[in-house]
Amino acid sequence: MEINLKDIHSPADIKGLDLEHLHLLSGELRAALMRKLAAHGGHVGPNLGVVEATVALHYVFDAPSDKIVFDVSHQSYVHKMLTGRIEAFIDPAKYDDVTGYTCPGESDYDLFEVGHTSTSISLATGLAKARDLKGGKENVIAFIGDASLGGGMALEALNYAPELGSNIIIILNDNQMSIAENHGELYNHLAELRKTNGTSPNNIFKALGYEYIYVGEGNDLRALIHAYKAAKDQPRAVLVHINTMKGMGLPCAESNQEAFHFAAPFDLKTGAPANPLDAESYDDMFARKMLEHTRADKNVAVMTAGTPGAFGLTPAVRDAMGSQYIDTGIAEQDCVTMAAGLAKGGVRPVMGVVATFIQRAYDQLSHDVAINNLPAVFVEFYGSLFGMNDMTHLGFFDIAMISNIPNIRMLAPATAEEYIAMLDYAIGQTDHPVVIRTPGGAVSHQSTPVNTDFTRYDIVEEGADVALIAEGPMLGIARKAAALLRDKGVTPTVINPRILSQVDTECLDTLKGYRHVITVEDGIIDGGFGQKVASYLAPTGIRVTCLGLKKEFEDRYKVADLLRDNSLTPEQIAELAI
Amino acid sequence: MEINLKDIHSPADIKGLDLEHLHLLSGELRAALMRKLAAHGGHVGPNLGVVEATVALHYVFDAPSDKIVFDVSHQSYVHKMLTGRIEAFIDPAKYDDVTGYTCPGESDYDLFEVGHTSTSISLATGLAKARDLKGGKENVIAFIGDASLGGGMALEALNYAPELGSNIIIILNDNQMSIAENHGELYNHLAELRKTNGTSPNNIFKALGYEYIYVGEGNDLRALIHAYKAAKDQPRAVLVHINTMKGMGLPCAESNQEAFHFAAPFDLKTGAPANPLDAESYDDMFARKMLEHTRADKNVAVMTAGTPGAFGLTPAVRDAMGSQYIDTGIAEQDCVTMAAGLAKGGVRPVMGVVATFIQRAYDQLSHDVAINNLPAVFVEFYGSLFGMNDMTHLGFFDIAMISNIPNIRMLAPATAEEYIAMLDYAIGQTDHPVVIRTPGGAVSHQSTPVNTDFTRYDIVEEGADVALIAEGPMLGIARKAAALLRDKGVTPTVINPRILSQVDTECLDTLKGYRHVITVEDGIIDGGFGQKVASYLAPTGIRVTCLGLKKEFEDRYKVADLLRDNSLTPEQIAELAI
Repeated sequence: MEINLKDIHSPADIKGLDLEHLHLLSGELRAALMRKLAAHGGHVGPNLGVVEATVALHYVFDAPSDKIVFDVSHQSYVHKMLTGRIEAFIDPAKYDDVTGYTCPGESDYDLFEVGHTSTSISLATGLAKARDLKGGKENVIAFIGDASLGGGMALEALNYAPELGSNIIIILNDNQMSIAENHGELYNHLAELRKTNGTSPNNIFKALGYEYIYVGEGNDLRALIHAYKAAKDQPRAVLVHINTMKGMGLPCAESNQEAFHFAAPFDLKTGAPANPLDAESYDDMFARKMLEHTRADKNVAVMTAGTPGAFGLTPAVRDAMGSQYIDTGIAEQDCVTMAAGLAKGGVRPVMGVVATFIQRAYDQLSHDVAINNLPAVFVEFYGSLFGMNDMTHLGFFDIAMISNIPNIRMLAPATAEEYIAMLDYAIGQTDHPVVIRTPGGAVSHQSTPVNTDFTRYDIVEEGADVALIAEGPMLGIARKAAALLRDKGVTPTVINPRILSQVDTECLDTLKGYRHVITVEDGIIDGGFGQKVASYLAPTGIRVTCLGLKKEFEDRYKVADLLRDNSLTPEQIAELAI
Repeated sequence: MEINLKDIHSPADIKGLDLEHLHLLSGELRAALMRKLAAHGGHVGPNLGVVEATVALHYVFDAPSDKIVFDVSHQSYVHKMLTGRIEAFIDPAKYDDVTGYTCPGESDYDLFEVGHTSTSISLATGLAKARDLKGGKENVIAFIGDASLGGGMALEALNYAPELGSNIIIILNDNQMSIAENHGELYNHLAELRKTNGTSPNNIFKALGYEYIYVGEGNDLRALIHAYKAAKDQPRAVLVHINTMKGMGLPCAESNQEAFHFAAPFDLKTGAPANPLDAESYDDMFARKMLEHTRADKNVAVMTAGTPGAFGLTPAVRDAMGSQYIDTGIAEQDCVTMAAGLAKGGVRPVMGVVATFIQRAYDQLSHDVAINNLPAVFVEFYGSLFGMNDMTHLGFFDIAMISNIPNIRMLAPATAEEYIAMLDYAIGQTDHPVVIRTPGGAVSHQSTPVNTDFTRYDIVEEGADVALIAEGPMLGIARKAAALLRDKGVTPTVINPRILSQVDTECLDTLKGYRHVITVEDGIIDGGFGQKVASYLAPTGIRVTCLGLKKEFEDRYKVADLLRDNSLTPEQIAELAI
């Protein structure tokens, strides 16, 4: 008997296989995965590490009646291959037919749109409680990685789940890595559990009331099936701790687990990127600048909650920063509030953070940092429509979220020079918390000096009648619109607002004789900086139009489409302005 | 030697006392506390329980050079008494000279404005790291209750702190209570540690790398001093687990710990409230309505993250709800995301939540509930300027935070009848997540039928030229303004918008010939519903004025002052409208 992946339409197709054929199947799945990952890019290490764990999952449990919740769900590719979506992994023309995360719109086997970490146990607890209230009997399973377990909500739910007193199974996929290395003492404890083959008398999971099952060979199908069967149908909380290898089977991914957590298309043999980038990037600029600051002043600390690679903090840069580099693991809340403590203690913390993840620490920004008005600095990446485009990773809600918290100065540089000047300003001052939005898209430059009073708008082009106030990467688009307008005899004033958390009333007062003021932002209109301008000017009866994005969760959009659908092209802006 | 509290000006004044006199001091402090609490109200149980633990703290450690961070800081009264603020506890005329939480503006012994739980370890970690970078030697201490330890950020920080490899001391004040009873398996583990006098081989704190010290008699000064001395100056993470009694010394507080967590003025002997309230309240209305719903449908679940008493869920109501009542403990994130799981599982979750605490679950509302567009219901309390007035507990940022998340319908009832109708609507529908803001202030009623299409604004008074669009409790104020305007010959249209997360464009289009549109909300203007109205109408050049609060952290404001300072009185609104 041979395994033909094309014949796998649902988990039913693997239920009858014997161990040998399950092995063959796993090999075929891994090979197909590698081909797609190399050609298409994606989460390499997480998926290669859980091929067997996922095959065993669908072999032992009966999805979709048994309910499987993948944490982050970036490791759900094999699950997708086994649940009716194999074509999207073996037919290059169909590679983009599936998202990179679980997606209920694709399949009933997928329960939630998920992309952030540490949510699976809470979601599973809700499903299990709903089952109990309804008198159901199905298994509910949360599949979560060791790094995700360190996130606050996962720990809250780990604490709560056994209180249900009914079936809930947590599969802890321990691959000994976060995106980068793990941080936190939990990981020494997991190491102790691995070292003792799960027999250590000190066991945090048993302390929390779990039945604990250890699988030392988490890439061994027989051991996995045995463990899953032991966990199945138990009327209590069971934690199955499986020791897996991230990137298994692909030498470059095994040996460089950080680089191959997520990768763009690469050469399968060498691991070399297929399309090496040598363009200037804001990430590198940030890393270089922070290295300068930490070298110049030992009281500057650079922080991340588990995503150093997202902004150029390579292992070499981290090493060079030494004890001035702080990674709290995937624990944004702890990181932001630790920044408050550092600032209070006289250190200047600079936390780099991906925009979609800063929202995991809203209360910390408000209650710990802003109320205490501490000079912590937060540098956002991908906070823009020119950012990440998966529905779960959108970066264009940040202005609405952050700019309405008192005391925080939220800055949006439009050029590299402004970006550098804002970083220097933020680290140098001690008056306020500062959030800097790293511009989305390609790096742009300015030849004029940067006005370093960042409470003031910058008039980039002097004109009359019509004003375009455009922040960050929208400034370039507004300037193109201005050029079109000049061709038609209108010379608009073009303004770079730079600060999004307050309006420059002095500047806006000069616009009161204008015919039309248009604000342009790369975030949602609702709650954004444009509405602050509108509510300042609207009592005077001046026409104000706020341009930006509709308040919607977009999914895998094309930037050009999104701009056009929201009237954000230079042509549309120019037409509106007349 | 006698102890005279008036002589206690700083911790230096207690350093020379022997144990007998420290006992006397503790007795005097407790007696004074009881007098103030009975006359003034405040956090009764938390403070009475830590008299000895705080005396020992200032006896052993050397604040302010040693740094003490109180979690929540609602238990910091004795700390204030020992650090120069005794008058505010013994002179009734000065009772209001101090806030109910630590406050850097009052004293250098207070490091942070704090009022939310679970922040102390992260803050202490930041202070400790700052000390290490600066080469300091002081002790850094986080003082945290057992209930607060279950919050996600506390667990994140518990995990991270030992990685510092330097001095940090966590004092775990285990009084076996949250505001209500504790939830989560951690509490069975703490019980095991208490039962074994700290010797259980399974020890979550040791598993996480802490040196662990147990104090079985946490109200015994000698034992506390001994333990604190053992922890002091250690170059590592130490956790001191102290077993205390909440409300100690006051019989009513010892026997009814939930009611006396926080109490308004009461009779010291009987515990009876000094000013019993028999006014109708929205809390009771909510509890009664939820009891009806849970009885009528076993698939309705009522949820809280540790604050059932804030909305009428008394022990009797909770008992009556049985397994349909869910308390996750102080774990808002887990509660919100568990609600997502429940909704996916076909149950209708209704989570009651204090407005200032819902911000602890922004990512959960957005990423787990809203992206998946699940019909979970969140009922906010004290989301208003007519709410809690401590700087750390303000309830008027919620519109800006929640109404800008896609898919969520945020509703603001103006009357009891509308409130009930919205609860029924929210529980009955399955299209969207719904957030309902329980109105602040006294209950108001309407005699007209409730229009149950809550996507539409309600025209309450028909007029012309001027429109007042006022939500929730501001509607009553706007109607008073309208009466004043009618006296002056202007008949404004008065509109109750009811929905804050979107505008009723059909209704707003009818206002385009108006001279002036004024929006009125009991939240900050920035990011609020008024700015949505302004940005919809402003392109037409109609005058729109957004009234609401300035984006500021107010502290212990008087409602009348805040209204006047923000032009929100009927007279001010009427004047503006003309």
